[in-house]
Amino acid sequence: MNRQWLLDHHPEGPATADCWRLAEAPVPEPRPGQILVRLRWLSMDPYMRGRIAKGPNYAAGVRPGEVMQGGGVGEVVASNHPDWRAGDLVEAMGMGWQDYALLSPDAPGSARANRVPEGVPEQATLSWLGMPGLTAWIGLTEIARPMPGETVVISAASGAVGQVAGQIAAAMGARPVAIAGSDEKLAHCRDLGFVAGVNHRSPTLAKELRAACPEGVHVFFDNTGGVIHDTVLAQLATHARVIVCGRIAVVDRPADQDIGLRASSRLIVTRARVQGLIVFDWWHRREEAMAHLARLWREGRLNYREDVVEGLENAPEAFLRMMAGQNFGKQLVRL
Amino acid sequence: MNRQWLLDHHPEGPATADCWRLAEAPVPEPRPGQILVRLRWLSMDPYMRGRIAKGPNYAAGVRPGEVMQGGGVGEVVASNHPDWRAGDLVEAMGMGWQDYALLSPDAPGSARANRVPEGVPEQATLSWLGMPGLTAWIGLTEIARPMPGETVVISAASGAVGQVAGQIAAAMGARPVAIAGSDEKLAHCRDLGFVAGVNHRSPTLAKELRAACPEGVHVFFDNTGGVIHDTVLAQLATHARVIVCGRIAVVDRPADQDIGLRASSRLIVTRARVQGLIVFDWWHRREEAMAHLARLWREGRLNYREDVVEGLENAPEAFLRMMAGQNFGKQLVRL
Repeated sequence: MNRQWLLDHHPEGPATADCWRLAEAPVPEPRPGQILVRLRWLSMDPYMRGRIAKGPNYAAGVRPGEVMQGGGVGEVVASNHPDWRAGDLVEAMGMGWQDYALLSPDAPGSARANRVPEGVPEQATLSWLGMPGLTAWIGLTEIARPMPGETVVISAASGAVGQVAGQIAAAMGARPVAIAGSDEKLAHCRDLGFVAGVNHRSPTLAKELRAACPEGVHVFFDNTGGVIHDTVLAQLATHARVIVCGRIAVVDRPADQDIGLRASSRLIVTRARVQGLIVFDWWHRREEAMAHLARLWREGRLNYREDVVEGLENAPEAFLRMMAGQNFGKQLVRL
Repeated sequence: MNRQWLLDHHPEGPATADCWRLAEAPVPEPRPGQILVRLRWLSMDPYMRGRIAKGPNYAAGVRPGEVMQGGGVGEVVASNHPDWRAGDLVEAMGMGWQDYALLSPDAPGSARANRVPEGVPEQATLSWLGMPGLTAWIGLTEIARPMPGETVVISAASGAVGQVAGQIAAAMGARPVAIAGSDEKLAHCRDLGFVAGVNHRSPTLAKELRAACPEGVHVFFDNTGGVIHDTVLAQLATHARVIVCGRIAVVDRPADQDIGLRASSRLIVTRARVQGLIVFDWWHRREEAMAHLARLWREGRLNYREDVVEGLENAPEAFLRMMAGQNFGKQLVRL
């Protein structure tokens, strides 16, 4: 028989064990193009909390009565696919919480099967050589791109993504600083090459973070969201880059506990980019931009409304009406 | 005499007229390399609120007793600089709220003087052909880069930056949607080429925005922050780009009115970039990333800790302990 964890119901508040129920089903037979896998490893990842939520997410969720989704590693026990044979080791996102999984190696998406490379621990394809490793790699080398000597703060630093991110940051010449929830975890991070660590349960988190990041935080690889996110954001250095990757600190809170709007959920779901803009950083582009703007204006494609207040004596009034939204168009004072 | 608005004191809550006081001083003489300008236009810009705040900002603020900072346009009335003569029109950031300003055309920074180009209204160098125009231009062409047909939502759309941003977005083939505070302002935006408009004072703001942006918001050029920011963020389309440019809706609130942490202030000050990350967008880079990771592991530069729970029957427990932060390293279940 095939033991399977089915979703019993969506959690209303924090996920609890009774959200799933264990069931049994016959072990299936692989149809043409399919392989039957006996699971050896299941990967537990925070994204799964989104999959059992009621609301929409970036990927389809699990409905009550369905097998819980999850990646894993297993051994092929029966193959109806020319490239796979019994004994092969396979890693896939679409294993599910069960003893046996049917995979379609040629299918797109999560039913796809990946061969476990030789010479590495087989379960590494679920962690540093798999999805969490890729997350850390892309986050640092494509999105954040830390420069040598820059400080890279990583939350959930001893976690699946954090451990790899810290070592990639170090390999890039940056200073990885760990945030984790116990001194033991922080000691492990030190062993991995993090230059400093802060316990997020410390009542003086902000102060300790400041001591670990005397020039501010150049890169923040955020796997937690919540109070940690707020604390680090308040210490960003100029031109910092923030990777909003996870929100485990807030994702499992009771729905009725309003913690105010924090953007991390929408930013992950939409992969939106948010970037501060101060025009003086771009002052060297002034001539170029002005030439374009002047052309648009000459072509009649740029119109503009001004709100003119007369007299220097009315300067404060002009400023205050603009602040109150009472102006209509560009606020000017004519002297 | 030279009338000057001095900062009297930093505002504690919203700025009020008594934050400044009008004083008089002798009209100064230009020293070598300087020019004396009689102001004709003062520019009122939201950034000035930051300059009179007590706290640090991205530029040095005004201290009590100092002339209020601000850009303007004026006419040279006396020159002690070889390139400038009486009658020349000059635009500068460092004019100040006063009748006469001394400028050093060769100096870096705000004391620098720019010639007013011919053939355009002289005050345009304070708006669409000056700093607000450059802000709009860079925000759209460098940061947001809307594609033809994409929806670009602009808050404070009839304001100094918003008007230009809407027309640049239209010139790029995008659909500019205005958010403004009156129907009159929205009608003006329509005249400028905005395809739709939403009054941010409407009690059904979110619903009206959804109607104007049926495919979601691809680009959000945010000049206001606050509730408008929250409302638009909740309607971002996948891979949206958000320009955090201004926060006039919240910058002048009383200090004691806690509206919760919103990132826009830190993002502007630091020009930080925030970007959502979902690793599956980068799955095509999997082989490349894995090769790098495997090399680091072979070189002994990548270490990794796992937290292994035994038995499929303990899968929910493994998931829940990870959610509670009780795991130490990558959470796995071994079957």
